[in-house]
Amino acid sequence: MTGVYAADCPERTVLDHVTSRWGVLVLCALRDGPKRFYLLRDKIGGISEKMLSQALRTFVRDGLVAREVAPTVPPQVTYSLTPLGEELAGTLVLLVEWVTRRMGDIEAARERHDAVTDA
Amino acid sequence: MTGVYAADCPERTVLDHVTSRWGVLVLCALRDGPKRFYLLRDKIGGISEKMLSQALRTFVRDGLVAREVAPTVPPQVTYSLTPLGEELAGTLVLLVEWVTRRMGDIEAARERHDAVTDA
Repeated sequence: MTGVYAADCPERTVLDHVTSRWGVLVLCALRDGPKRFYLLRDKIGGISEKMLSQALRTFVRDGLVAREVAPTVPPQVTYSLTPLGEELAGTLVLLVEWVTRRMGDIEAARERHDAVTDA
Repeated sequence: MTGVYAADCPERTVLDHVTSRWGVLVLCALRDGPKRFYLLRDKIGGISEKMLSQALRTFVRDGLVAREVAPTVPPQVTYSLTPLGEELAGTLVLLVEWVTRRMGDIEAARERHDAVTDA
């Protein structure tokens, strides 16, 4: 666990991918089953098509997401978590659940902080 | 857990803070005890003083990190995790440990991917 503190370790690139602004939400959104591109875009409020396709491309290369093209006309592209991606998404869901559960405490801390700072 | 998918939910701001490029490493680095600014900077390879102080300021406001100033000359400033920050860091460490453990699999996936793409 000391490795990640080194500036040029390979772990950093993965941490950057999975902790990108959209990475966490994309991996969590795929957790309840394979999805097509536009369904993912609609599920994740505020994500642009450019950011979504960039996140998916990165995760496909990292072996976390599988991209399947059905031989239909037009071809249907579906994204799903690989077993490796399932493992990671399980960890990320704990993070998202923690943030959701503790949001009230964090907002209260901000109010206390701003009250002192503004005084 | 549906809340985080909404574009303007408050949970998003916290996810942005704790999944910032440096947020994960700063919180994990504080996990083995309180630290002074320069010790943190030296521990986290590649972080600039500007990024570190920005991350710390955000975490202090969110109630995740406590900033203590000892009445010495010059004053000594120490940062530590609050109980809320301890909880969150516990989740983030699982993420970092997963990335460290699976780095070999991810690098192998990249090589397979690039071999096909370059072919």
